[in-house]
Amino acid sequence: MKVSRFLSGGREGWAVKNPATGLWHGCTQEDPQYPGSVDSLIKTDPGALVSACEFMVQKPALDLSEMQLLTPLGQAPKIICVGLNYTDHSTESGFEQPDYPTLFSRFNTSLIAHDEPIIYPALSNTLDYEGELAVIIGKPGKCISRAHALDHVLGYSVFNDGSVREYQFKTPQWIMGKNFDGTGAFGPCLVTADELPAGASGLKLETRLNGQTVQSANTQDMVFDVESLIVTISEVMRLEAGDVIVAGTPAGIGHAREPKLYMKPGDVCEVEIEGIGLLRNRVQHAGLA
Amino acid sequence: MKVSRFLSGGREGWAVKNPATGLWHGCTQEDPQYPGSVDSLIKTDPGALVSACEFMVQKPALDLSEMQLLTPLGQAPKIICVGLNYTDHSTESGFEQPDYPTLFSRFNTSLIAHDEPIIYPALSNTLDYEGELAVIIGKPGKCISRAHALDHVLGYSVFNDGSVREYQFKTPQWIMGKNFDGTGAFGPCLVTADELPAGASGLKLETRLNGQTVQSANTQDMVFDVESLIVTISEVMRLEAGDVIVAGTPAGIGHAREPKLYMKPGDVCEVEIEGIGLLRNRVQHAGLA
Repeated sequence: MKVSRFLSGGREGWAVKNPATGLWHGCTQEDPQYPGSVDSLIKTDPGALVSACEFMVQKPALDLSEMQLLTPLGQAPKIICVGLNYTDHSTESGFEQPDYPTLFSRFNTSLIAHDEPIIYPALSNTLDYEGELAVIIGKPGKCISRAHALDHVLGYSVFNDGSVREYQFKTPQWIMGKNFDGTGAFGPCLVTADELPAGASGLKLETRLNGQTVQSANTQDMVFDVESLIVTISEVMRLEAGDVIVAGTPAGIGHAREPKLYMKPGDVCEVEIEGIGLLRNRVQHAGLA
Repeated sequence: MKVSRFLSGGREGWAVKNPATGLWHGCTQEDPQYPGSVDSLIKTDPGALVSACEFMVQKPALDLSEMQLLTPLGQAPKIICVGLNYTDHSTESGFEQPDYPTLFSRFNTSLIAHDEPIIYPALSNTLDYEGELAVIIGKPGKCISRAHALDHVLGYSVFNDGSVREYQFKTPQWIMGKNFDGTGAFGPCLVTADELPAGASGLKLETRLNGQTVQSANTQDMVFDVESLIVTISEVMRLEAGDVIVAGTPAGIGHAREPKLYMKPGDVCEVEIEGIGLLRNRVQHAGLA
């Protein structure tokens, strides 16, 4: 299933895509039969969203192109990002490929949805793109075994881990450059795991800046696959329903190019993952936001 | 005002301390007059918690020692931690004192309250203490000026930024070692800013391990004071009500000692900040939790 959250007339709603017709069906919180928000359903239990989708698909069709899309989740309890998860990107970044995942975090305040503007910060001209696979946890767990890791995945989405390089590297810890408001694009929708190959492996991932391909890779080239990430992270911390793992970017970032290829106001950045969707955002100066 | 969250008979409640009598007054969510959780009041508006405290102090006195205390907030939107914020700690850690704050994050899953066990992990014997001041944001804001920074602070608390050093330094990014479940102690209560000097400056901070003083400092020695941290962080990201800034630890950590002084099961670690409170936790092996 594909699930999209949206705003319509100032009210939150969500819709599910009928795979037979390609039409989206859903309603807003104003509907007396609204089954609850995606966030609250995910937290209820792993099956609640599936049941709610079966109900939602009976609702009248909606024209999502008339709605303002929202990020796949309203408020992720944790957003755990993986650095250096494609060997070619580790090389271009001047790192040896580590044998343990390099993790950092984003906050929800940095996130934007499909079609929302990426905010070009007033403080720096080093805004860069990073196309990535996002993994959305459905079933909580601690010390999860590899054999059961994928049982904890609700679904996948697309992420642009927009990075202000000057601030990322001001100190050895990256989070300031990874958390400018309006720089982390997440969407367009959540695709449940049953629609994709195991661990979302073998999917083509492409980032385009103003139509030109700048990153082209395959998710099977991730050094730490989805199972490994879940095993390693859950050894340390409990994963909760709604946690997001942003699984790392391949080679081609603007910061590693000569000359540098940073994003600027007016640019359009697209990240597309086969079978999941196309995440498109225009860059807009902070002063105009 | 001092505010404590607690569980009583499986129900969440909170209480406020009457400064004249030293008695705590409050109720649980079961009370029909319950004014809402601390988290929800903070998010409503900066004055809502103050009004609710004026109501709560009329309630019958409670014996908090019979309650299970909870962390000052249920779910902080962001927990932003500051590394290297006391020059003597930067030196003992082998870093030059940076002129820009070194920030990382903790997740809510790592937090425990006063009197809850610090969980000694099965994976490593390098569990260390870090006594710190916690700043709780009440009023949201972006690009906050130094002149107005303290208007955004609701109050303060005490934090033990428990760190598994082996995992902190497995990669250049510290968050794995900073996010083991049950390693970040936060409490015992929230003290509103009006009860303390501006920016909680000039307060004695002490960490004791099994009664022996291992860290002794004064919050006036923070390199980046509370105002500076709010200015610098809010240049990059919007601060929200309930966000927590954990303001860094002074010299004396176990990892910088020779021989190393790591915590072990059965140890009792206390962090005390003058005018705020005493945060005490016993270390317990993960297998017993």
